[in-house]
Amino acid sequence: MKILITGGGGFLGFKLAGALLARGRLNGQAISGITLLDGAFALDAARVAANDSRFHAVIGDVSDPDVLARVCRPDTAAVFHLAAVVSGAAEAHFDLGMRVNLEGTRQLLDQVRKGGRSPRLVFASSVAAFGGELPAVLDDSTIANPQTSYGTQKVIGEYLLADYTRKGFLDGRALRLPTIVVRAGKPNAAASSFASGIIREPLNGEVSRCPVGPETGVWLLSPRRVVEGFIRACELPAAAWGSRRVVNLPGITAKVAEIVEAMRKVAGTRAAKRVVYKPDARIQAIVKTWPVRLRTPRALEMGFKPDADVETVIREYIADEKIKID
Amino acid sequence: MKILITGGGGFLGFKLAGALLARGRLNGQAISGITLLDGAFALDAARVAANDSRFHAVIGDVSDPDVLARVCRPDTAAVFHLAAVVSGAAEAHFDLGMRVNLEGTRQLLDQVRKGGRSPRLVFASSVAAFGGELPAVLDDSTIANPQTSYGTQKVIGEYLLADYTRKGFLDGRALRLPTIVVRAGKPNAAASSFASGIIREPLNGEVSRCPVGPETGVWLLSPRRVVEGFIRACELPAAAWGSRRVVNLPGITAKVAEIVEAMRKVAGTRAAKRVVYKPDARIQAIVKTWPVRLRTPRALEMGFKPDADVETVIREYIADEKIKID
Repeated sequence: MKILITGGGGFLGFKLAGALLARGRLNGQAISGITLLDGAFALDAARVAANDSRFHAVIGDVSDPDVLARVCRPDTAAVFHLAAVVSGAAEAHFDLGMRVNLEGTRQLLDQVRKGGRSPRLVFASSVAAFGGELPAVLDDSTIANPQTSYGTQKVIGEYLLADYTRKGFLDGRALRLPTIVVRAGKPNAAASSFASGIIREPLNGEVSRCPVGPETGVWLLSPRRVVEGFIRACELPAAAWGSRRVVNLPGITAKVAEIVEAMRKVAGTRAAKRVVYKPDARIQAIVKTWPVRLRTPRALEMGFKPDADVETVIREYIADEKIKID
Repeated sequence: MKILITGGGGFLGFKLAGALLARGRLNGQAISGITLLDGAFALDAARVAANDSRFHAVIGDVSDPDVLARVCRPDTAAVFHLAAVVSGAAEAHFDLGMRVNLEGTRQLLDQVRKGGRSPRLVFASSVAAFGGELPAVLDDSTIANPQTSYGTQKVIGEYLLADYTRKGFLDGRALRLPTIVVRAGKPNAAASSFASGIIREPLNGEVSRCPVGPETGVWLLSPRRVVEGFIRACELPAAAWGSRRVVNLPGITAKVAEIVEAMRKVAGTRAAKRVVYKPDARIQAIVKTWPVRLRTPRALEMGFKPDADVETVIREYIADEKIKID
């Protein structure tokens, strides 16, 4: 079977591609090739992709119908749609976010529909779907009320996915992702970038400037768990989803101060002291609209798993990225 | 002040235009002109519009940016966005519905944004936002889960409206309309067309073929109340809306058999006997996904009003449309 991953040159997309190849199979079929579509590829992803004939890396814009026609073929049996302009960038560049996150998603769904084979399509939505006047603990009955353009575009993508699924054009499944911690690589324009930065930079011997205060809570999930979640979302039978094709993934809640403390336990006081607080009103304004605590019985029943605790998340990051602690 | 009504050549849009001119004022300002945009105009609307210099009728497609640039000017101080491909047609013609109902709405919002004056914009959404596994009585906390493309496009319009409002591009207010009863004129391609047809056609001495059974429930609102609702939605201060820019309008619940009985009381047995049941599986499949019973405390607190009962709705229709009962 052939797989398409949009955003396949990014951190999560490329991790997902690696995990899929390591398994060798998806939905009971052998994987014969994975097309990775992205606007740009990280160097290591580009190198790995170039040296493995099962990968087909394509540089292009997910909102360009010609690009989509090239990467999404009738024999594409599963699609993972991760490509997006991230939250901070979609907020600062409204038209760019609408074009890539809204029109890009619609173009992709239309291209999949043209193939006429109704493949499974897993969509990376976000906990940024929630906002406004929120209960202390959200649950599966909480209405999406995004307070960012990114969150709005993700919610719209969920509703499009549901309707294309209902019409039989594809078999869609949407996951609302917590903040992913720890992302490897460089800080990005996501407003949530700090949540990885306060672990990643100190472990690299660098200072991390945290734009939010130590009491700020984060609803988080590790790269390992979210990759497992993407694959599970694709393999679950349609009946497991019922009449709604979106689910809030499980996560754990941690304050920034608790994350720093976990890092001190794992990597020592010197690393923990490399986190300095540099308040940034623009980032705080976005982050404060995100939920911190959720009950996710639907996801747990469907077999999606949270992480054990923040220390484990940090240890797995150190192992996965082969970090040397000084 | 200048007003734009999309769908202004249609039944509700033109009634709204008449009510606005009769008031003479909106949001504390004198109304100097109303632009009516529609793909086609009913004959009576065209005649009235042609004979009143305060009306400016434009025939065009709401998803055409050039048309929108003509009708939506910087001095447009209020917009009522009613234009839509109706439910049955959007279900049968998927691409048409997506173009007009989704892209048309986005184009309109973008055109309003270009004006740079953040006018009030009232959006006609629909109770078709709801569907799937529903509680017996819905309320303001029920998650939108549309089971038609029309409902999906309306929900997406609500989320776009909210984000454009949050960004300060406009001041949006969305109303989820019940089924409007009694619509004057001809049956249309809306799956809900029967709910007016079983009153209107018998009063005209014609047989009405009802595609759903007598036990089918309808959540309904009269044209008078919905026109009042549009105006109220525009005049309420922004603070009355809070962090959500959408509200479920109040309505009343009536079974088809109860509507027929109310008509018998108002217009006699002969009229009531002109309703014949002709089951239509396609219409039933759409209608059965719609909610029948809602609690609407938010709307009631905001001053939106339901009708007294079905008999009153029928009597008002007879008065408004100058129907002669045989």
